[in-house]
Amino acid sequence: MRIIIDAMGGDNAPDEIVRGAAQASMEAESELVLVGREEKIREILKDCKYDESKIEVVHAEETIEMDDDPMLVVKGKTESSMAIGLKMLKEGADAFVSAGSTGALHTGASLKVRNIKGVRRAAIAALLPFDRPVLLVDSGANISVNPENLVQWAYTGAVYMKGVMGVEKPQVGLLNNGTEECKGTPLQTETYKLLSECEDIDFIGNVESKEIPYCRCDVLVTDGFTGNIALKLTEGMSKFMLKSLKSLFTANIFAKLCFLVMKGQIMGFRKKYDSAEYGGAPILGISKPVIKAHGNSDAKAFKNAILQAERFAASGAISEIEAALAKRNS
Amino acid sequence: MRIIIDAMGGDNAPDEIVRGAAQASMEAESELVLVGREEKIREILKDCKYDESKIEVVHAEETIEMDDDPMLVVKGKTESSMAIGLKMLKEGADAFVSAGSTGALHTGASLKVRNIKGVRRAAIAALLPFDRPVLLVDSGANISVNPENLVQWAYTGAVYMKGVMGVEKPQVGLLNNGTEECKGTPLQTETYKLLSECEDIDFIGNVESKEIPYCRCDVLVTDGFTGNIALKLTEGMSKFMLKSLKSLFTANIFAKLCFLVMKGQIMGFRKKYDSAEYGGAPILGISKPVIKAHGNSDAKAFKNAILQAERFAASGAISEIEAALAKRNS
Repeated sequence: MRIIIDAMGGDNAPDEIVRGAAQASMEAESELVLVGREEKIREILKDCKYDESKIEVVHAEETIEMDDDPMLVVKGKTESSMAIGLKMLKEGADAFVSAGSTGALHTGASLKVRNIKGVRRAAIAALLPFDRPVLLVDSGANISVNPENLVQWAYTGAVYMKGVMGVEKPQVGLLNNGTEECKGTPLQTETYKLLSECEDIDFIGNVESKEIPYCRCDVLVTDGFTGNIALKLTEGMSKFMLKSLKSLFTANIFAKLCFLVMKGQIMGFRKKYDSAEYGGAPILGISKPVIKAHGNSDAKAFKNAILQAERFAASGAISEIEAALAKRNS
Repeated sequence: MRIIIDAMGGDNAPDEIVRGAAQASMEAESELVLVGREEKIREILKDCKYDESKIEVVHAEETIEMDDDPMLVVKGKTESSMAIGLKMLKEGADAFVSAGSTGALHTGASLKVRNIKGVRRAAIAALLPFDRPVLLVDSGANISVNPENLVQWAYTGAVYMKGVMGVEKPQVGLLNNGTEECKGTPLQTETYKLLSECEDIDFIGNVESKEIPYCRCDVLVTDGFTGNIALKLTEGMSKFMLKSLKSLFTANIFAKLCFLVMKGQIMGFRKKYDSAEYGGAPILGISKPVIKAHGNSDAKAFKNAILQAERFAASGAISEIEAALAKRNS
């Protein structure tokens, strides 16, 4: 398989991206294609240990910046690393990974690579790192949506959690402001009805946001506005928690001694909430695997995102989603 | 002043409510009227230390249950403690406190006691307990709203934070999925525009949910659906954080020893995120102070909610809100 990598996307590009790809080349079976400023990429590779037979570099003159209009990836910056990477994906590669602008990646993937048949709109699916990880779909791409969009995301999310994350029988919940069937806006009440009627979906009903850390389901569907609020608040609170923990253990000399005693557990705790461990967020609904790595990905996080893209491509999840939606619509 | 207390509302009613009122009678200057099953209330009072000159009991035959239709407080259960309490509020008392059904309290207060002139819909305002506390308005009452509602809540929230919480120059933010002016649904873009034009409001712009723990503003306005998601997720993550901390310190004998060493700090940390410390959520927009205490309030939490109601009534905030909105609409 061939995995295309946007070497220029994200806060730490291209250094950490290239280093992550170098690390991934030692573990992955696929060929990895780094797209970006060739000279710079080769310079970074010089200092890395990597499998030369698995790394290829393709030059791209331009870069999509974080504050660029997302449409530029389709029209205007067609020589950017993201645009060239997406073109390669469309023309035969097996997956694409970028830590660049979420909006541009979603727009570019939706317009340059076709959607899965039966999926009207692609969604960003973030995996929230709790004991039972929860896939939040949509976590930010689609602000105004309809109930049918949410049902399609329930299918795509469930197949992804089974095929790529190995969850045997994924359960799906609907993020809402109460557990009763009547709760929410017409979007939620109508989606509740539709999901209840889906025989292939193990729908557990409405899930309140306070339950998110306690793992009641594997896939949580919502509109992109609410999903963005929930995702960023979960991240914000996790960071805040780790920062508070740090100040607790640095308050005085006794606390510092306790830190030394408990270092193992505390590091385990940190690791648990370290988004780097989780790779990236798949853009679900595109006919080829596309992974959005976290904007501040370091080499390790980016390596994980590449390995995730490889698992996604190997899983056959996309054909399964297409088949499940065809069955539903037949 | 006279503060009316719904003795039958909440998970721990009437025991903890009556005990909380007894404690409050030793600190408050107001007369406290407990409404509920008189015999039961007097039985609990027997075991409490309280100021007899400040506690009065009014009998109510019925109780609004948590899963009752909120409209029952207006039609059907007019002999309930909540309905009688709201009637007393309308007819001259100075404030009302209940830990009962949020929906019933909001409906009852809106329909039985009039709104502040200029406020179309009353909102629930929860105070999030961070270093710089944030008042989240609306945190759950109004699911479908318009930009003008949000602007009115910006005024009510700012006056409340100044008059009752002592914040000199309250800053107002709009909860959104990004900081740029163009972000969000038409509700957010239109509200952004209106708030920018309000001369009396110190509007700091859009606030992303990840910033909530880091205190960028004093009042955060949003629709009740999004507010409910944000409030419950903040609460859920805080609880989760405290539970994780507990398991960290009980993992083995060394960790348990560290707990003993760090007990003071850990308890301080716990207290910081203990909702009990913060009393309750004002229902802003009603022409008399109404406080919704947390459903699981214990005596201490309920005592704080009563003291908060007293501060609210003494602050003159309601006339100030009316004046500010009259000025805006003139």
